[in-house]
Amino acid sequence: MQELLKKLVEKHRQTTNLGKVANYIPELEKTNPKDLGIYIIDNDGNEYFAGEYNNKFTVQSISKVVALMLAIFDNGEDYVFSKVGMDPSGDPFNSIRKLETSSRRKPYNPMINAGAIVVSSMIKGNDVKDKFNRLLEFFKKITEDPTLELNPKVYLSESETGNKNRAMGYYLKDEGIISGNVEEALEIYFKQCSIDVTAKTIAKLGLFLANEGQLSNGEQVVSNRVSRIVKTLMVTCGMYDNSGEFAVRVGLPSKSGVGGGIVSVVPHKMGIGIYSPALDQKGNPLAGIYLLEDLCNELKCRIF
Amino acid sequence: MQELLKKLVEKHRQTTNLGKVANYIPELEKTNPKDLGIYIIDNDGNEYFAGEYNNKFTVQSISKVVALMLAIFDNGEDYVFSKVGMDPSGDPFNSIRKLETSSRRKPYNPMINAGAIVVSSMIKGNDVKDKFNRLLEFFKKITEDPTLELNPKVYLSESETGNKNRAMGYYLKDEGIISGNVEEALEIYFKQCSIDVTAKTIAKLGLFLANEGQLSNGEQVVSNRVSRIVKTLMVTCGMYDNSGEFAVRVGLPSKSGVGGGIVSVVPHKMGIGIYSPALDQKGNPLAGIYLLEDLCNELKCRIF
Amino acid sequence: MQELLKKLVEKHRQTTNLGKVANYIPELEKTNPKDLGIYIIDNDGNEYFAGEYNNKFTVQSISKVVALMLAIFDNGEDYVFSKVGMDPSGDPFNSIRKLETSSRRKPYNPMINAGAIVVSSMIKGNDVKDKFNRLLEFFKKITEDPTLELNPKVYLSESETGNKNRAMGYYLKDEGIISGNVEEALEIYFKQCSIDVTAKTIAKLGLFLANEGQLSNGEQVVSNRVSRIVKTLMVTCGMYDNSGEFAVRVGLPSKSGVGGGIVSVVPHKMGIGIYSPALDQKGNPLAGIYLLEDLCNELKCRIF
Amino acid sequence: MQELLKKLVEKHRQTTNLGKVANYIPELEKTNPKDLGIYIIDNDGNEYFAGEYNNKFTVQSISKVVALMLAIFDNGEDYVFSKVGMDPSGDPFNSIRKLETSSRRKPYNPMINAGAIVVSSMIKGNDVKDKFNRLLEFFKKITEDPTLELNPKVYLSESETGNKNRAMGYYLKDEGIISGNVEEALEIYFKQCSIDVTAKTIAKLGLFLANEGQLSNGEQVVSNRVSRIVKTLMVTCGMYDNSGEFAVRVGLPSKSGVGGGIVSVVPHKMGIGIYSPALDQKGNPLAGIYLLEDLCNELKCRIF
Repeated sequence: MQELLKKLVEKHRQTTNLGKVANYIPELEKTNPKDLGIYIIDNDGNEYFAGEYNNKFTVQSISKVVALMLAIFDNGEDYVFSKVGMDPSGDPFNSIRKLETSSRRKPYNPMINAGAIVVSSMIKGNDVKDKFNRLLEFFKKITEDPTLELNPKVYLSESETGNKNRAMGYYLKDEGIISGNVEEALEIYFKQCSIDVTAKTIAKLGLFLANEGQLSNGEQVVSNRVSRIVKTLMVTCGMYDNSGEFAVRVGLPSKSGVGGGIVSVVPHKMGIGIYSPALDQKGNPLAGIYLLEDLCNELKCRIF
Repeated sequence: MQELLKKLVEKHRQTTNLGKVANYIPELEKTNPKDLGIYIIDNDGNEYFAGEYNNKFTVQSISKVVALMLAIFDNGEDYVFSKVGMDPSGDPFNSIRKLETSSRRKPYNPMINAGAIVVSSMIKGNDVKDKFNRLLEFFKKITEDPTLELNPKVYLSESETGNKNRAMGYYLKDEGIISGNVEEALEIYFKQCSIDVTAKTIAKLGLFLANEGQLSNGEQVVSNRVSRIVKTLMVTCGMYDNSGEFAVRVGLPSKSGVGGGIVSVVPHKMGIGIYSPALDQKGNPLAGIYLLEDLCNELKCRIF
Repeated sequence: MQELLKKLVEKHRQTTNLGKVANYIPELEKTNPKDLGIYIIDNDGNEYFAGEYNNKFTVQSISKVVALMLAIFDNGEDYVFSKVGMDPSGDPFNSIRKLETSSRRKPYNPMINAGAIVVSSMIKGNDVKDKFNRLLEFFKKITEDPTLELNPKVYLSESETGNKNRAMGYYLKDEGIISGNVEEALEIYFKQCSIDVTAKTIAKLGLFLANEGQLSNGEQVVSNRVSRIVKTLMVTCGMYDNSGEFAVRVGLPSKSGVGGGIVSVVPHKMGIGIYSPALDQKGNPLAGIYLLEDLCNELKCRIF
Repeated sequence: MQELLKKLVEKHRQTTNLGKVANYIPELEKTNPKDLGIYIIDNDGNEYFAGEYNNKFTVQSISKVVALMLAIFDNGEDYVFSKVGMDPSGDPFNSIRKLETSSRRKPYNPMINAGAIVVSSMIKGNDVKDKFNRLLEFFKKITEDPTLELNPKVYLSESETGNKNRAMGYYLKDEGIISGNVEEALEIYFKQCSIDVTAKTIAKLGLFLANEGQLSNGEQVVSNRVSRIVKTLMVTCGMYDNSGEFAVRVGLPSKSGVGGGIVSVVPHKMGIGIYSPALDQKGNPLAGIYLLEDLCNELKCRIF
């Protein structure tokens, strides 16, 4: 396996040239576009890795998966999904149009930005600081990684430039979908996106979902059902408006982030963390997807 | 004329039943839906009126006409229309979708909310207070009404509940259409909408446009060309997405506001101010439009 | 006047370079893009002209004005406008989206293709041949030009390539807006677009509208009201989704066609016919609009 | 198992009251809304059934799965997916707007009507009759059911009333996505929707996909890869714009039809056919989905 990963990373090092590092904030732009790393942890505790598996990057949209589990934990499945749907939107992740044009009057799913902001607005806590801390602690717990922390520079950049997200927040407030303070919801959202991770952290998140919400010590942190909901949403909506094509090519519940990360889940078997910061036009890690496609062909681990 | 106005107000007093007073903020809801008033001032200084011509109401969207003239005065026609178009949008006045779906990447015109917020962001001044004061002084000057003032209760309500406008503001900021501070632009916009007027004030605004930007003392405050641009935009976009039907029925450059006002211009002849707070489904003063339609049939003053 | 026209045509001969002749059918593509002609007829019978005023071109969308008057004559204003609106759409003339996304469930106005197909479906007659003949005879009558005839080559090309119009026709049939046979409605529509005219024919159409539906012999063919409705729709919707900007620049009720024609109306005074086949990106005659803008500045004949 | 099915059908007989039989053509309206049937065939040849498993109904949109496999067989995967995407659209199955508003310029996936019409236009054959016959023979082969035949009454109704599909066909022709004759493509599409099936036929189709394109005699009719593509598209797009929620509730690759059928696949294990003609608002078999949800809870056969 270790050899396979090494070979695949070498093979797709060139592929990174076809993508472009996210540049909407200066912090992300500094990244080396040729980086490519992978980390795999299986159920027996084996760990495999290759490439820049140890580089730090911000978790970005992968945090939507974490926040969703905590929001369901805090509010229950019914309440959460009364405010956000479960269906693919067919539009880019930062699109606002369906909030106005669809008869649903709520974001289509928690994996697009509008839906994720709603989810972040539901995290409980005494104040906005407490809310984010609870999210960070929850993230540490399920990845069994106590070192996770906020990247304050990225957070500031996100907050300063995130006016499209801000627009969605206020639109959702006007529609009554967000009931609390919009700026607080955005602060949590921007902060959760700005947590530094490595491919290993992400692989641990994948393993947690592969094990249906259980930690390595057997503790059941979220229910099977919640874990299943999250994995299903990852399949149908996890790779933005390219989720359908990704499901055909890779066929694993996955979630990407513009920081270059992808978490993939091989149910009951393993968690996979990818780091591949050069993105395709949809905002997905370009070489990382090719790498995953080859890996699934080799391991025959697709769910379809 | 005075008799005619009285007769028409009586006739359409019943029509007010078909409309509904705006209720998105408590202050507007208190209005008497049966109110109906008209004020006409002609070029020779004659004044005619009937009904609740003396009631105070907030100017709301009619202020878009005033702000546009000042913004062109401050920035020039070319700059203003590089940030906002001149064409009808075909969508409701508070719609956001075209900001994303249209290839234009700017609001369609200055009479819909998105365009008006851009216009308000262009008013010059040392700070937000100064900017609004300049707008208020300009409004006083062209209506020759030194008593105009802000209704602070309405302003606070507008600001608190105006999250759809806030959403548009941040979206436009993200697109680079608004270059300054969004909350400041919104403060000016909400305040300009919250200026108290009467049908007479509105008639004076109409007269100013009828006289191509001249005051009664002959002072040319805005150029013929600017006055013509504004009147043209009133014809094509002034009555929201009902402007086309209104042009057929009434045929005068006009602008409505959800406070119940309508300004109408009979070029080179007279200004008309309407107060009719019960609105139709598009947000236009329902009985006021019927009244104007009858009036134009009587006076044969349509421009078409 | 004759001198002025000559001067303006010379001035804008170069402007034609900025446009492109319509090329969706081979017949239109053969046109000389440098052509530019104008014909003016006033109320006193004076005629002025310059440039290629005598070239033949197909009337295209200008026929929408003619068909609308006949459809109202045949069905009454109320029926016609129960199937098609009076408001600008804000979308390109061949756009289909609003048929699905708008709550109106009918085309926004008779000047966009969807609306014009509905209008053509309402022309009365024993069969499709008779219906088109009635339209052609009506067109001859109001332009006092008995030589008008169909260009069969253009018609065949239009019909063969007109699949977007066909799509709209079937969509409108499904919605119950078109009640008869779709292919018949399309045949009439494609044929009415394929009638050969010159700038003079078009100027005569403009004069007919300037005189509120009266022929030169005093015969009232359509009512004042119908003539007014048509002129109003020309102002708000006649130049496609550029109607607002055109109204500012030119300020006359006008209708363009992709064959290069523009009809403009100076109410109570004159009809203007333009021939300018090189089009701008919206599908409007580019140099023709510049020419009209200069002409209106000279004649001071704007309605605003 | 037989007992379980009987119990579940009984339990959900009442649920049928919440749905409504499709009524856009008279033939479908005659169906008994209280019908509910299920048929399961597993890999060992065991068959289980309950309720109206033997009633005939038209296959409708389930045929999209069959046509897609044949179109890929005839044209190759690359060609097919150059004309139709693989991603959920987020819009209703008969929506036309994205053909105009999306930058993709092709239908989002083969499970919505626009995409399915494109797929049907690709079926090879000497003429339209031959093309449909090839489709019918292919359908018979993979369901091992030689009795399948067209329901001519339903076909005629579909063809007469299918003007929204016709609109899409002509729109796609105009865009160059359909290269052949539109009416022929529609004839094949309407006919494939009008094939009579029972729950058993549908279960056989599911079994064929469960076995990755193999017949019971071991013959490999389509490749593993094609079978996988189809199943993936069923997960992400098979239940119209409710596919995401369905994936959470049921979690099996499935495709519904407005005739009341659902095919579901338990990979490597079994095919499930449902008949449940009373539909929910999205056009999916209402009681059938509840039945499947309970069944998956009992059998623990979800793929997520």
